[in-house]
Amino acid sequence: MNDEPTSEILDAIYHALCKHGYAALTLQHIADESAMSKASIHYYYDSKNELFVAFLDFLYDRYTTQIDSTARDSPREHLRSLLEVLLTDEEDTPGTEFRTAMLEVTAQAPYDDKIRDRLVEFGDYLFERLREIISAGVNAGEFNESVAPERIAEILTAIITGSHTRQVAINHSTDRLYETITTNVETQLLTSAVAREEQ
Amino acid sequence: MNDEPTSEILDAIYHALCKHGYAALTLQHIADESAMSKASIHYYYDSKNELFVAFLDFLYDRYTTQIDSTARDSPREHLRSLLEVLLTDEEDTPGTEFRTAMLEVTAQAPYDDKIRDRLVEFGDYLFERLREIISAGVNAGEFNESVAPERIAEILTAIITGSHTRQVAINHSTDRLYETITTNVETQLLTSAVAREEQ
Repeated sequence: MNDEPTSEILDAIYHALCKHGYAALTLQHIADESAMSKASIHYYYDSKNELFVAFLDFLYDRYTTQIDSTARDSPREHLRSLLEVLLTDEEDTPGTEFRTAMLEVTAQAPYDDKIRDRLVEFGDYLFERLREIISAGVNAGEFNESVAPERIAEILTAIITGSHTRQVAINHSTDRLYETITTNVETQLLTSAVAREEQ
Repeated sequence: MNDEPTSEILDAIYHALCKHGYAALTLQHIADESAMSKASIHYYYDSKNELFVAFLDFLYDRYTTQIDSTARDSPREHLRSLLEVLLTDEEDTPGTEFRTAMLEVTAQAPYDDKIRDRLVEFGDYLFERLREIISAGVNAGEFNESVAPERIAEILTAIITGSHTRQVAINHSTDRLYETITTNVETQLLTSAVAREEQ
């Protein structure tokens, strides 16, 4: 045995989280989702919190892989494909259940520095990729050269975060927002003459 | 005694919530913030949950009053003043503490229909006011006539929700986003030729 969590534990956490949410999650729930005993899971980490932080690191790898998989030659198509992955409503129930649990985790971040640090990384990764894509689009002549990439990236990051919160908390579909962004924001903010610093 | 919660209880809930957050909130914490005993608070409502739903109704009144107070003769100025109230970072600690507790409440909405119903009302009220303001701006000739008010309102509602989540969870300032919206979104999405249904 080593001190790295096995993929079996991480998978078990994922399924237990979807089923029970974060607040109600116990080591027993995690054990129930794997062939391992509660004692062997406990061996790896002292507490639910520590195990969960390891799980967030694992999720971060999955998240960045998912975001990176949207790469396309054209920055405009790249942006479209990234927004589609992040905003299109997932039909499968596990997807919604997982986002529900993640909103609970987000709400715990103000009380837990380790969780907060991980969430900052998720947010930074998304922001940086958006900034790069928009910047590449400006350089390739696909987006207007007066567009300020970091400002559009900031807006899109807030929109994506807000749409996930609204989807989970009040069951508000993200599909319409996706359509609006791909018609209005993308076409207007990125192709019309947006002043870099207008005021 | 009647069955309406007194403003003393509602004030006590507000202060207890800022201090302890929602998950850790107990009737004792609420009692500690008022001159009333735990028993008298318990008299009004059977559970923390029921008392809290009454508190959300009280908050809704405060929220709509705050939004309505931003009314200005010019729709453009009205929008600016509404965004300023909702997005400018509050310097005072109670403001941030309160938003932190509200994010916890939001994360509980998927598990609690009464809380969810209240949050839908908050979201709908904001969306409707934004839609009205933008619509009035189009009619007054302040915004481009090809702007689709409900689509811009949808985007702005998501931005406002997302910026609050990011402020609370990862301490991300909303000031820069406010500046970006008032320079880019407002000027570009609302005054340039945004197609009503482009695709």
